[in-house]
Amino acid sequence: MKNTFGNSISITLFGESHGAQIGAVLDGIAPGIGIDEEFIRAQLDKRRPVGKIGTARHEADEYQIVSGVFEGKTTGTPLAILIPNTAQHSKDYAATRSLARPGHADYTAYAKYHGYEDYRGGGHFSGRITAALVAAGAIVISALRDKGIEIGTHIRSCGGVADIDFGDIKTDIAKLNMLDFSVLDSEKGEEMKAQIEEAAKDGDSVGGVLETAVIGMPAGVGEPWFDTVEGVLSHALFSVPAVKGVEFGDAFAMVNGRGSDYNDSYYIVRKGHCEAATAAVAISTDYEIKTATNHNGGVNGGITNGMPIVFRCAVKPTPSIFKAQDTVDFINGTDWLVSRCDSE
Amino acid sequence: MKNTFGNSISITLFGESHGAQIGAVLDGIAPGIGIDEEFIRAQLDKRRPVGKIGTARHEADEYQIVSGVFEGKTTGTPLAILIPNTAQHSKDYAATRSLARPGHADYTAYAKYHGYEDYRGGGHFSGRITAALVAAGAIVISALRDKGIEIGTHIRSCGGVADIDFGDIKTDIAKLNMLDFSVLDSEKGEEMKAQIEEAAKDGDSVGGVLETAVIGMPAGVGEPWFDTVEGVLSHALFSVPAVKGVEFGDAFAMVNGRGSDYNDSYYIVRKGHCEAATAAVAISTDYEIKTATNHNGGVNGGITNGMPIVFRCAVKPTPSIFKAQDTVDFINGTDWLVSRCDSE
Amino acid sequence: MKNTFGNSISITLFGESHGAQIGAVLDGIAPGIGIDEEFIRAQLDKRRPVGKIGTARHEADEYQIVSGVFEGKTTGTPLAILIPNTAQHSKDYAATRSLARPGHADYTAYAKYHGYEDYRGGGHFSGRITAALVAAGAIVISALRDKGIEIGTHIRSCGGVADIDFGDIKTDIAKLNMLDFSVLDSEKGEEMKAQIEEAAKDGDSVGGVLETAVIGMPAGVGEPWFDTVEGVLSHALFSVPAVKGVEFGDAFAMVNGRGSDYNDSYYIVRKGHCEAATAAVAISTDYEIKTATNHNGGVNGGITNGMPIVFRCAVKPTPSIFKAQDTVDFINGTDWLVSRCDSE
Amino acid sequence: MKNTFGNSISITLFGESHGAQIGAVLDGIAPGIGIDEEFIRAQLDKRRPVGKIGTARHEADEYQIVSGVFEGKTTGTPLAILIPNTAQHSKDYAATRSLARPGHADYTAYAKYHGYEDYRGGGHFSGRITAALVAAGAIVISALRDKGIEIGTHIRSCGGVADIDFGDIKTDIAKLNMLDFSVLDSEKGEEMKAQIEEAAKDGDSVGGVLETAVIGMPAGVGEPWFDTVEGVLSHALFSVPAVKGVEFGDAFAMVNGRGSDYNDSYYIVRKGHCEAATAAVAISTDYEIKTATNHNGGVNGGITNGMPIVFRCAVKPTPSIFKAQDTVDFINGTDWLVSRCDSE
Repeated sequence: MKNTFGNSISITLFGESHGAQIGAVLDGIAPGIGIDEEFIRAQLDKRRPVGKIGTARHEADEYQIVSGVFEGKTTGTPLAILIPNTAQHSKDYAATRSLARPGHADYTAYAKYHGYEDYRGGGHFSGRITAALVAAGAIVISALRDKGIEIGTHIRSCGGVADIDFGDIKTDIAKLNMLDFSVLDSEKGEEMKAQIEEAAKDGDSVGGVLETAVIGMPAGVGEPWFDTVEGVLSHALFSVPAVKGVEFGDAFAMVNGRGSDYNDSYYIVRKGHCEAATAAVAISTDYEIKTATNHNGGVNGGITNGMPIVFRCAVKPTPSIFKAQDTVDFINGTDWLVSRCDSE
Repeated sequence: MKNTFGNSISITLFGESHGAQIGAVLDGIAPGIGIDEEFIRAQLDKRRPVGKIGTARHEADEYQIVSGVFEGKTTGTPLAILIPNTAQHSKDYAATRSLARPGHADYTAYAKYHGYEDYRGGGHFSGRITAALVAAGAIVISALRDKGIEIGTHIRSCGGVADIDFGDIKTDIAKLNMLDFSVLDSEKGEEMKAQIEEAAKDGDSVGGVLETAVIGMPAGVGEPWFDTVEGVLSHALFSVPAVKGVEFGDAFAMVNGRGSDYNDSYYIVRKGHCEAATAAVAISTDYEIKTATNHNGGVNGGITNGMPIVFRCAVKPTPSIFKAQDTVDFINGTDWLVSRCDSE
Repeated sequence: MKNTFGNSISITLFGESHGAQIGAVLDGIAPGIGIDEEFIRAQLDKRRPVGKIGTARHEADEYQIVSGVFEGKTTGTPLAILIPNTAQHSKDYAATRSLARPGHADYTAYAKYHGYEDYRGGGHFSGRITAALVAAGAIVISALRDKGIEIGTHIRSCGGVADIDFGDIKTDIAKLNMLDFSVLDSEKGEEMKAQIEEAAKDGDSVGGVLETAVIGMPAGVGEPWFDTVEGVLSHALFSVPAVKGVEFGDAFAMVNGRGSDYNDSYYIVRKGHCEAATAAVAISTDYEIKTATNHNGGVNGGITNGMPIVFRCAVKPTPSIFKAQDTVDFINGTDWLVSRCDSE
Repeated sequence: MKNTFGNSISITLFGESHGAQIGAVLDGIAPGIGIDEEFIRAQLDKRRPVGKIGTARHEADEYQIVSGVFEGKTTGTPLAILIPNTAQHSKDYAATRSLARPGHADYTAYAKYHGYEDYRGGGHFSGRITAALVAAGAIVISALRDKGIEIGTHIRSCGGVADIDFGDIKTDIAKLNMLDFSVLDSEKGEEMKAQIEEAAKDGDSVGGVLETAVIGMPAGVGEPWFDTVEGVLSHALFSVPAVKGVEFGDAFAMVNGRGSDYNDSYYIVRKGHCEAATAAVAISTDYEIKTATNHNGGVNGGITNGMPIVFRCAVKPTPSIFKAQDTVDFINGTDWLVSRCDSE
């Protein structure tokens, strides 16, 4: 299975940056889920590169769900989400088609598809394809919210500037999904933007870390071998070409500590309260088990423990830069000096 | 699919720490592959905890391949690998069965299996189950070697002590698979062992980072969406319960740099030579494309670029420690003070 | 995986009879395959109900491939095939929405989707959804033809009238794909049509048997367990709601005979010749192995033996009839007398 | 995925006729299911060829479940079922290893595995491998019984002798699983045995039809496309090498009739009663929907309608016969006259 992912719920992606349409088929969604068109549109708008930040393509993503929805609710059959490509660059991609832009997939696509790939604007590897993922994700986020599960992501660091951490995640993380530039500390956000713009002045780009929390997931979800929570999420996360690292909880920090520092100790708490029970109590519908710390990111042995699932993605600096870079022509073989690269 | 992983080649794991046998079914192996029993045994011996380091179970892993091999070669049908559990602890696990050992999967297993799980020695979550993975992996490593692909792993850091890095990976990385304590710099290895022992004296444990290189993989392997090289490998790697983070190339280091620092530039080299071609050359069977650096770990857009695939796993400190830790009894609910935890 | 089928090549179906669009995503097609638009259109025209025969919807199926094709050839990435629904009935489906048409999926859809299903014209169960399958199939048939594999189907029987059998399949079976009414004996075809029309006069319908041959498939394709040639093909074939039986070779005839009657004996033949070698010969590139008869339909132990793969599908009489039938209202529960049912 | 089948519950098969052990891994079974060892043993005994009927191998199938069961109940983790091969023939298979027994998989196995296959006694294609399927099936049948779902199979016809049909399936079909020779009419059973023995006297074999009913399955199970009830069941059923045809309901009989004959009309019945409601009633927990006939075998549009699922498998005459047959040596190419073939 190549462009399809997921068991209970599966998504199939298709499209190229400069083809007629991109889209996704989302299958396995239960019948009767309301479709929040406004929320989908808002998420697509967030993905769309705007202003000084991001790449040059300012295309409004007009999506259409052509199946699987009837009278505003899911039917239980596949949702096909279509997004037309309206603002295709007119530039002549053929002239540079065999120049391997460093950090991009031009050469690996050529190696895989033997020259038949649609090379215009990154083709099937374009960041644009994520628009379909975003629309599908917005539908799933809504459905999970109805079940009391919230997902939110902030920019943990960008261009060397760190946002504050989630803390005890009392924050309404759902609000993060509605921010244009998702940070907990908006001043830090402004510093990040300054870094992005400064790099852009040099024809360069920056990287960062995204941090996500999933709240409200009950204990007992996941599998011990292979389909662990970490394994399944990372499998999906690494599909975004710029994501090169994924860690759960304090992974890369824990490696230098000791077991006694990072074993999250358990306690019992009355539901809806924060303080640990002091006297001996019986497990019941009134009490739940929590951990005092969450170094393991809500997952033990691949299975949720009821604490927030917290993970971080390392996003490498955008490879699309305007600085000159050394590269080769992978068809003709001549060495080249690339003067300029842009993406999408 | 729960305990099965892989498409072309798939593995199905089974077994519990204190059941009759553990094992794996390895399917999809081409017919005619030689089985190197000695290499399998050597890999199993490396996995087995010995001496002062590791947990207390010193069981010789006697494996048996009961199908899929005929006259010393694979037949193309599934290989069932069986490993009997011979040295089961006699201790009474029932007394502590509902104590949630911090950092372990006792509580999450209970939440998932509703109390029917085999709780003895970690059951299906035991590190012992990896013995079947190791045996299967040894078969696959041999098969890949026949195709010119070598895989090697060293302990990149442990207890805060760093090994030297792979450098240009001129090292015969296959040798790493034969070392008892796999480091490039044996002095650093001794320092690591000292750290492990020092922690052990305190009834504590340490963590570390494993770094793996895959050499000889041709360009063009992997998928752009979902079944990226990074996604598929991380999916498998996170099955090991102690692995909490996975990064490819310099992922978490790259996030603070700029695109121009980390875009690996391409050059052309005569095959078998190291220096870049200085004059313009045509791509041919004599010349191949390489990158000057390998910050992307051999993968662009999810697909191999012909450079070594390099990734690192963050291994958290072993949760099995002898120090007292706070926890709860997840059936009876009383708060407990755990005096001692051991694993396997 | 619900609406997705296939391993190397997979298809994902979506759409409802009266939704905006139906379609399919076809993935795993090798790069560089030519797209024969004319052949696809011809296949879609064959599927389309016309004239007196078939149901009333005479919609031209205008398909569009919006991804995975570049400069007339496949790129190796997913092909999304879209077919708009243009001629939607204006009739008020709501009035009869909870009437279970006998032989149709109205009630089972309700039981599965709890009333959220798009009930108009059969929704996701409509025969119309097969248009996307036909388009995808046309692409695959072209690709297989380039590899020397031909697939052809004729109406083996219809309304009690039998066509002649494939014989030794010297027939150019590919021609069958271009016939409007695919029979080997056109007179028998006229008799079949007469039966269809006679039944239609009574407000009734007929059934039949489709017989397919796949020629040119080399020996050794298929798996011994589960993914047998028979298992995989039947899994797909039974998706067509009217197909209720599938047999390979002479299955239901063989059950009354003896092993000696139906064991297809082997012989050796010079390639391109028909007569068995009379003297002892060595297997070489000049000679190939065939069977004297083909009662097993080209498959032994789930794997092709190099003979034509021959299978038959039992197609039940179309459930859409105009005769009054007893049924129930599955929401309100009242017994009803249905006066008229039509499909699509 | 080659030797693995199933989504929620999956089975992985391994083993060869003359290898050390055969077996299966059964995964996805819910925790807490009781294991009925006696029932498993009884099913294995039924599979085992005995007396004059069947092939010569009279091996007691001693199975062992080495994982996934704790204190007599399933744990929710994979069950590995092992069956040792104790009574291996001593005969020299090497002498006839490249003789293609007609109707067997010797030649197709060679074409697929290039001569590396374990050819002794049919290897991985041996009917013996079904022993592991039978043991796994016995576990699943028990689990389904606990949910009110019963499965039973009888020999619908054998050697040209027909058993009576299921009728209204008031029969306790579960009893069929305990019969040595599963027929509804024991006299017909004796006639069938006589046919088998008569064929055996001629060194020949007979075929037959197996008919299965699944009772108690609620309406709404199955998928409209691809994972239809018919598609998934047939996929599994065709794994048995002798099964060459599968039909649901009256498939191959329906093709000659009309829609009005075979559209199963619906009616409403008070639960636990047989007669249709005569006055208008409301659907409620007291009433359920049934069909007056069951020509569609309990499935409409791929989804169960609450009626018994009824299907039939065409089992070709056992290819293992003692009569001389023409065949070839697929390695040396010489034409041969096979004097004798036996199986397992």
